[in-house]
Amino acid sequence: MSKYDDLREKQIGSEEVFDGVILHLYKDTVELPNGNSATREVIRHVGAVAVVPVTDKGNVIIERQYRYPFDEVITEIPAGKLDSPTEDPLQAAKRELSEETGYSADEWIDMGIYIPTCAYCDEKIYMYLAKGLHRGEQNLDDDEFLHVEELPLPELVDQVMNGQITDGKTQAGILKAARILKI
Amino acid sequence: MSKYDDLREKQIGSEEVFDGVILHLYKDTVELPNGNSATREVIRHVGAVAVVPVTDKGNVIIERQYRYPFDEVITEIPAGKLDSPTEDPLQAAKRELSEETGYSADEWIDMGIYIPTCAYCDEKIYMYLAKGLHRGEQNLDDDEFLHVEELPLPELVDQVMNGQITDGKTQAGILKAARILKI
Repeated sequence: MSKYDDLREKQIGSEEVFDGVILHLYKDTVELPNGNSATREVIRHVGAVAVVPVTDKGNVIIERQYRYPFDEVITEIPAGKLDSPTEDPLQAAKRELSEETGYSADEWIDMGIYIPTCAYCDEKIYMYLAKGLHRGEQNLDDDEFLHVEELPLPELVDQVMNGQITDGKTQAGILKAARILKI
Repeated sequence: MSKYDDLREKQIGSEEVFDGVILHLYKDTVELPNGNSATREVIRHVGAVAVVPVTDKGNVIIERQYRYPFDEVITEIPAGKLDSPTEDPLQAAKRELSEETGYSADEWIDMGIYIPTCAYCDEKIYMYLAKGLHRGEQNLDDDEFLHVEELPLPELVDQVMNGQITDGKTQAGILKAARILKI
């Protein structure tokens, strides 16, 4: 019996609405704490990783990527989906950093879990700070397009604070890294 | 002609897959920069607001809410959906803060836009810092259940940094507020 037991909902039905490549959408029915029933639209997602890679000079490797839902090029820290729900997140982070930017890193600092949208999607993003970077070859998929750039961490903090950087994982990742590195 | 024109995708088809209460899911087809075609699974969302309400003593009003996708009670800053795509975000923030916590505020500081999941959902969250709080009556919907609590901002910063707070908008909102208030 926890102090939050009066908030819990109980699943009483589940219907798969869409089984996509990235998104798996369910329309579930739940029993609320007051006994009423309600509908929950839920996306099931495999999970993802994100990395704040910081060079010895204090620059961050970032990506400019076209994001279809916004019809805009968005500034983001390197990130990507897990290959499977059981993939080790740190291995996935190393793979995504290497494939998207060409960099590998000597030091990996766990920055915890970041949940993008707890109301309707079960995606978890495992977030890391990577230091001791070594430049190698980028290895994008044939149908993957992005620019890799390098910006000083203090400048990225300013861009988070003045609203230029809108991507949520990038806001949280940059501000966490700045606290860890005392910027 | 922008420097990122080589990244852009062009919509060549769109199919509505699910028209829900909260989520509207489309399976679109795009032409990639290399001429290939690809599928984009996109959720269209009305948009939302989130508020970091800070008392004169430096405490933050937070919520504990059961989140069905995780079957967990999650710690979050007050937040809620816009009533319509054209609703003024500041009005929505005032309404959500009042309904969920009972508080109104004298001072509202714009903390910019936070995009939870730019890869597959067009949701934008308009984020505010609210000061000069006045306590009133909470006014939850019949089927809405949450606990309102108050915690010192430095303690919430610690909980973001040590991984206890996993909700993304709460991580970004708390760390932004801490920078603005020099905590």
